[in-house]
Amino acid sequence: MNEYWSRTLRQIEPYIPGDQPQGMRLAKLNTNENPYPPSPKVISAIKEAANDTLRLYPDPNCDELKDTIAHYYGISKEKVFVGNGSDEILAFCYAAFFNPDEEILFPDISYSFYPVYSTLFGIPYREIRLNDDFSVPVNDFTTNNGGIVLPNPNAPTGRSLEVDRIVDIVKYNLRLKKVVIIDEAYIDFGGTSMIPYINEFPNLLIVQTLSKSRSLAGLRIGLAMGSEGLIEGLSRIKSSVNSYTIDRLALVGAIEAFKDDHYFKSNCKKIIATRDRVSAELVRLGFEVVPSKTNFIFVRHTTTKANELLVKLKERTIYVRHFNKPRIDNYLRISIGTDLEMDQLVKAVEEIVGGQ
Amino acid sequence: MNEYWSRTLRQIEPYIPGDQPQGMRLAKLNTNENPYPPSPKVISAIKEAANDTLRLYPDPNCDELKDTIAHYYGISKEKVFVGNGSDEILAFCYAAFFNPDEEILFPDISYSFYPVYSTLFGIPYREIRLNDDFSVPVNDFTTNNGGIVLPNPNAPTGRSLEVDRIVDIVKYNLRLKKVVIIDEAYIDFGGTSMIPYINEFPNLLIVQTLSKSRSLAGLRIGLAMGSEGLIEGLSRIKSSVNSYTIDRLALVGAIEAFKDDHYFKSNCKKIIATRDRVSAELVRLGFEVVPSKTNFIFVRHTTTKANELLVKLKERTIYVRHFNKPRIDNYLRISIGTDLEMDQLVKAVEEIVGGQ
Repeated sequence: MNEYWSRTLRQIEPYIPGDQPQGMRLAKLNTNENPYPPSPKVISAIKEAANDTLRLYPDPNCDELKDTIAHYYGISKEKVFVGNGSDEILAFCYAAFFNPDEEILFPDISYSFYPVYSTLFGIPYREIRLNDDFSVPVNDFTTNNGGIVLPNPNAPTGRSLEVDRIVDIVKYNLRLKKVVIIDEAYIDFGGTSMIPYINEFPNLLIVQTLSKSRSLAGLRIGLAMGSEGLIEGLSRIKSSVNSYTIDRLALVGAIEAFKDDHYFKSNCKKIIATRDRVSAELVRLGFEVVPSKTNFIFVRHTTTKANELLVKLKERTIYVRHFNKPRIDNYLRISIGTDLEMDQLVKAVEEIVGGQ
Repeated sequence: MNEYWSRTLRQIEPYIPGDQPQGMRLAKLNTNENPYPPSPKVISAIKEAANDTLRLYPDPNCDELKDTIAHYYGISKEKVFVGNGSDEILAFCYAAFFNPDEEILFPDISYSFYPVYSTLFGIPYREIRLNDDFSVPVNDFTTNNGGIVLPNPNAPTGRSLEVDRIVDIVKYNLRLKKVVIIDEAYIDFGGTSMIPYINEFPNLLIVQTLSKSRSLAGLRIGLAMGSEGLIEGLSRIKSSVNSYTIDRLALVGAIEAFKDDHYFKSNCKKIIATRDRVSAELVRLGFEVVPSKTNFIFVRHTTTKANELLVKLKERTIYVRHFNKPRIDNYLRISIGTDLEMDQLVKAVEEIVGGQ
């Protein structure tokens, strides 16, 4: 605390991202990065763009990237927004669509950044308690609210919600004239996207990222899709913070990532296959595995405590993520790595839980 | 306007950056970019970093870049913050250090983003009228306030303020316990930086950018330097918006830009020499040129109107910037390009004003 801090700053508890351990390690499975590199076409396009034009500002409207995304999803360019990662876009959403006198809703077990944005922008919130199996109690979201943020699939649980139930929530909020933000950071690993519904529901905003399924966490690109009015609102907030949030190299890389669709889909398939295989093996070793539609699994062991597993895995330089929070403090979130990394994880886990 | 927009969003008039005209042109002198490319070492470091590690998140703390900057300026790393351009940092400053019940101060003729941040974060402001020669009326800044944003040198005027007078303002605000932000975006073109004073004044924050003097507008890197408390405050705001605002490639490029000091200084010298030569030539052609310590000049012609000059230069694909605002609507802001570009500008201007 410092005497020069604003009142808002004094109230903030910032989000803490997963560790980025340096040096040698067996497997880094703690921040949901993609184990496969970006498309070689992304790399070569960036190398080519690393030239004298870096002295010039990027396109503040990101037109070429928006065109590429619009074409990819078969929507109009005016329904696409791009930003510096989906985190930045979510922050802009709070400023753009929520008001300080109305409680917004999000799940109690969810992305821990959601309440942080609330404090920053002075938006009150109510956490909706997930069911014991971490499924979403849809009826609790169809109540009076100032807006909704719903990750689908959810993180860190990995569970997905059926499209029809999301439509129920969006329709309810359409009558309230309130925005529903579906955070689809992990949608490409088996979930069903709500993109086809953005033409029907002017209050529906989809947020996605290139950090997970497109292997570009290091580039910082997120996107949002929704009605023209929502997208214009986000653009106006962005232009009130920073005219250029995506640099020239990231713009070029993101465009190529969407163009190399075969590479993208093949990576997603590999990760899904690895996830399902490892889930079965962990069940065999006495784990409960929450059904996942993401590139991670959320697990707990019937006898060995999560904390013990965390520490013993770390000793073997295998990094996974633990959230010291009510209801989930005995779970571990394990990102899906390569088959080799996951074999090492399974072997390590077998030693740990077998040695009891 | 849209029914889903928040009340804040409805009030916002976003900042509009200078045009980024596409296609062939004689000279783009409208957005204060550096006419010389970034250091070749920056380019090769980026090419090398464009590899498979882009699948991984960047370092959220930007430790290596902070170390490099701290070493460059001979200050401790805890006094350095880095962000996605100085615009993002300025936005964070409003959230971090200003409160909604106290008016902050900045000049009436200045960077037009300052009032935009105020609307976004609900911070009231009072614009201090610059003297007729665009110098800063220091006494008007040593009055009750909730914080001060002062660009030095100022933009779009190019005028700089003596260090002693800035110290007067900082000292006054130290008694008020209010922050003074000195926006040094253009400091490397002949101004005197306030960096040596950050150890003495815990309420002094310096904001700089790599977009101008280091030829990296396309990479999006800004920095702030100040007491540990101010820097920690900025970090907490950043971590409440977006854990990673600078991507892997920009981090690497920025580090190299600070390391190649000879290249940087030699470019700045060239630009200063061109600026002073062109200023003299424009005076010869009947212009008033505000004394500049930046990489641009702010000029008006004794007889030809700024609007006419703007249009006729554009016809010749020479782009300069005009602000349609009280007191400065008869001025043009002309970025300093290469000697060849500036010769073309002078020739074009001579044709236009000579042809009257």
